Amino acid sequence: MKITSVKGTCDYLPEEARLRDRLQRRILEVYEGSGFSRIITPILEDGENLDRSEGGENLSLMFRVLKRGEKLERALIAGEPGGLSDLGLRYDLTLPLSRYWANNRARLPVPLKCLQIGRVYRAERPQRGRLRELWQCDIDIVGTDSPDAETELIVTTAKALEAVEIRDFTVRISDRRLLLAVLEALGYPGERRAAVCMVIDKLRKIGPEGVSRELLGLGCGEESVVRLLDLLARRSMTPDTLRELADASESMASLERILRDSRRLAEGRYAIELDLSLVRGQGYYTGTVFEIESPDFEGSIAGGGRYDGLIGKFTGERVPAVGFSIGFERIYAMLKERGGLPGDQKRVAVLYGEGEFPEANLLAERLREEGPVTVLPRAARLGKQLDRLRQEGYLGYRLLGEPGGVVLLRPSGSGE
Amino acid sequence: MKITSVKGTCDYLPEEARLRDRLQRRILEVYEGSGFSRIITPILEDGENLDRSEGGENLSLMFRVLKRGEKLERALIAGEPGGLSDLGLRYDLTLPLSRYWANNRARLPVPLKCLQIGRVYRAERPQRGRLRELWQCDIDIVGTDSPDAETELIVTTAKALEAVEIRDFTVRISDRRLLLAVLEALGYPGERRAAVCMVIDKLRKIGPEGVSRELLGLGCGEESVVRLLDLLARRSMTPDTLRELADASESMASLERILRDSRRLAEGRYAIELDLSLVRGQGYYTGTVFEIESPDFEGSIAGGGRYDGLIGKFTGERVPAVGFSIGFERIYAMLKERGGLPGDQKRVAVLYGEGEFPEANLLAERLREEGPVTVLPRAARLGKQLDRLRQEGYLGYRLLGEPGGVVLLRPSGSGE
Repeated sequence: MKITSVKGTCDYLPEEARLRDRLQRRILEVYEGSGFSRIITPILEDGENLDRSEGGENLSLMFRVLKRGEKLERALIAGEPGGLSDLGLRYDLTLPLSRYWANNRARLPVPLKCLQIGRVYRAERPQRGRLRELWQCDIDIVGTDSPDAETELIVTTAKALEAVEIRDFTVRISDRRLLLAVLEALGYPGERRAAVCMVIDKLRKIGPEGVSRELLGLGCGEESVVRLLDLLARRSMTPDTLRELADASESMASLERILRDSRRLAEGRYAIELDLSLVRGQGYYTGTVFEIESPDFEGSIAGGGRYDGLIGKFTGERVPAVGFSIGFERIYAMLKERGGLPGDQKRVAVLYGEGEFPEANLLAERLREEGPVTVLPRAARLGKQLDRLRQEGYLGYRLLGEPGGVVLLRPSGSGE
Repeated sequence: MKITSVKGTCDYLPEEARLRDRLQRRILEVYEGSGFSRIITPILEDGENLDRSEGGENLSLMFRVLKRGEKLERALIAGEPGGLSDLGLRYDLTLPLSRYWANNRARLPVPLKCLQIGRVYRAERPQRGRLRELWQCDIDIVGTDSPDAETELIVTTAKALEAVEIRDFTVRISDRRLLLAVLEALGYPGERRAAVCMVIDKLRKIGPEGVSRELLGLGCGEESVVRLLDLLARRSMTPDTLRELADASESMASLERILRDSRRLAEGRYAIELDLSLVRGQGYYTGTVFEIESPDFEGSIAGGGRYDGLIGKFTGERVPAVGFSIGFERIYAMLKERGGLPGDQKRVAVLYGEGEFPEANLLAERLREEGPVTVLPRAARLGKQLDRLRQEGYLGYRLLGEPGGVVLLRPSGSGE
């Protein structure tokens, strides 16, 4: 039998799992503390729901689940490959939330402020170093058009990052409607604008030269390409720059308000920048889009946006919604690189000899008032065992039957 | 698009998710407090590993994942249904742990005391009222033959149940080797004993008459069936009863020690009974098996046993291991029925008017020192909004701009 984990998935060792737990718990505490309620959605989702969800390239990376029993037999006889699967593994937490809202709306408050922390699946090509099973931490606000929702998601997500000691980051924000208006003002024909947006989305990957080449390849005029790239190059763009260019008063007013309010609440601890080149891959975004980037990590560490059309696919009525997702694997990679978080649990071991387990457990129960205590059989070579416990991060130990209290494994005051 | 969750899976509402979180956190605290370390294994597992894992009927309930890309195309051309899938969703946490241990043994302590809390998948027929996506909470001790491991798992699992306010339960324990020795002593021929065990496992479902009928159907002699049923009917069996019957000194000594030590540590708070009729379905158990039952729930709420052969399937060497799994869905169903756990979070809402979001958030941040605070736009009909908040369990609210502190939604001292 194969001993490695499935390609693109991970086995997490105890110290790794402990760090992941602590990071998720801090993020959860910020989300819950800010009034977002956890909801839980299944990992299995209807295959057709996923196929119709406008998830961009994630749809081509879907894990599909084989039908079972008679249904599978019938599908095999019919011989249509598309009919072999009825379910898929979710590729994000936004589509499940949209279905969830539609299914449970009669019992949910409006607006709904909710959070999800859970696993999602993408059959990425492993050579890209990406995981196929990964965790996301999402907050969403469903049922309001107000740009206050965007502001709240930005400041809450930023607070969660600060809670896991990530401080040096920048929030980039844009609005797809604004970019489309700018493209119109620059003379890009309507039928070409979606394709142009997808090229612009690659700006950070392929650089301005790459974007220029691809846009010219699409048949865009040279002057409009130069003007567009000039505009996209301005990182600290102001709304006024754009106002001269394009008539997009609604998206502009919304963006200005989000920028003003979130900057006020950020109190200078992190930057919030308007960046017209931000598009994001998912087809379901309809307005504001945002990302958070850090100089410590290539690519974004969080991303989201407004998806006012997705829930309507389930309900038939437009239901505005906006969400922000922390890519937990990126946060975990950054913190692991740094050596974790300070202030881990103070764990103690009670070591016992043959036949002493009940006594050891009774002693451990008393010590557990103070923190986690394990009971372990005393090894033949005690020194080696104590070294091992020290490496595993134990604070101290107690030999059953020996007088005195817990013996510290690290000189007191040297850490923690 | 379909709005219901996939058959056999659940959408959990905020108050349901809150209860699930609190239950899992209490169980986790007991496990970690007792020195078990969390590990994390993937939900996706190699299909062949699952097929060869002796998981009993769970193997026929497996969700299989379709191959992707070229591999799928080749499998479709080959036309062999068995070749369409390469991965499966785990049906329990024991098989993943066994593979995990084999994969990471060089970096794991011996013995390893570990815990897992996570989702598993079984394509049960929905009419049986069983879930297809369910959570389990497992503790395992890998790398020791000592029956102290069984005792530790029993007292720790019992402590976890007590932590979620389940008190009226009984631990049933047996040893498969002992049952086999008894069958031998009663004259059951060797080649028939495994089948007889599977019938005995159904005692609680089909009753002694059913077992008798099925055993006679297998061709067992009437006298041996009567003697066996007489033995199985004794719920408070002592090891001495069995000693007269069968020669199984090793399993007997181990069981006696587990019974004696765990009863001592239980201090009378729950019963621990020897029950020879306990077999459990999984083929991978090799010795001790145990279950916990409660009069408040039909069927067991936790189960486990020793599986000394499973890890060896990966490593080629025998590695002893024993585990105990809490069926979280059963705990959740019991606690939900009872109306939850006392002492939920004290949440407060700050209500604001148009344009006041930043002020509301600044006020909420100050109040968050005390506990979770949400900010919500003030509804046109305030009374209705306050009723809704009260129903959702909010402790109080604050209207932005009005003097005074938090206004309580429930008369102070009426609950909690």
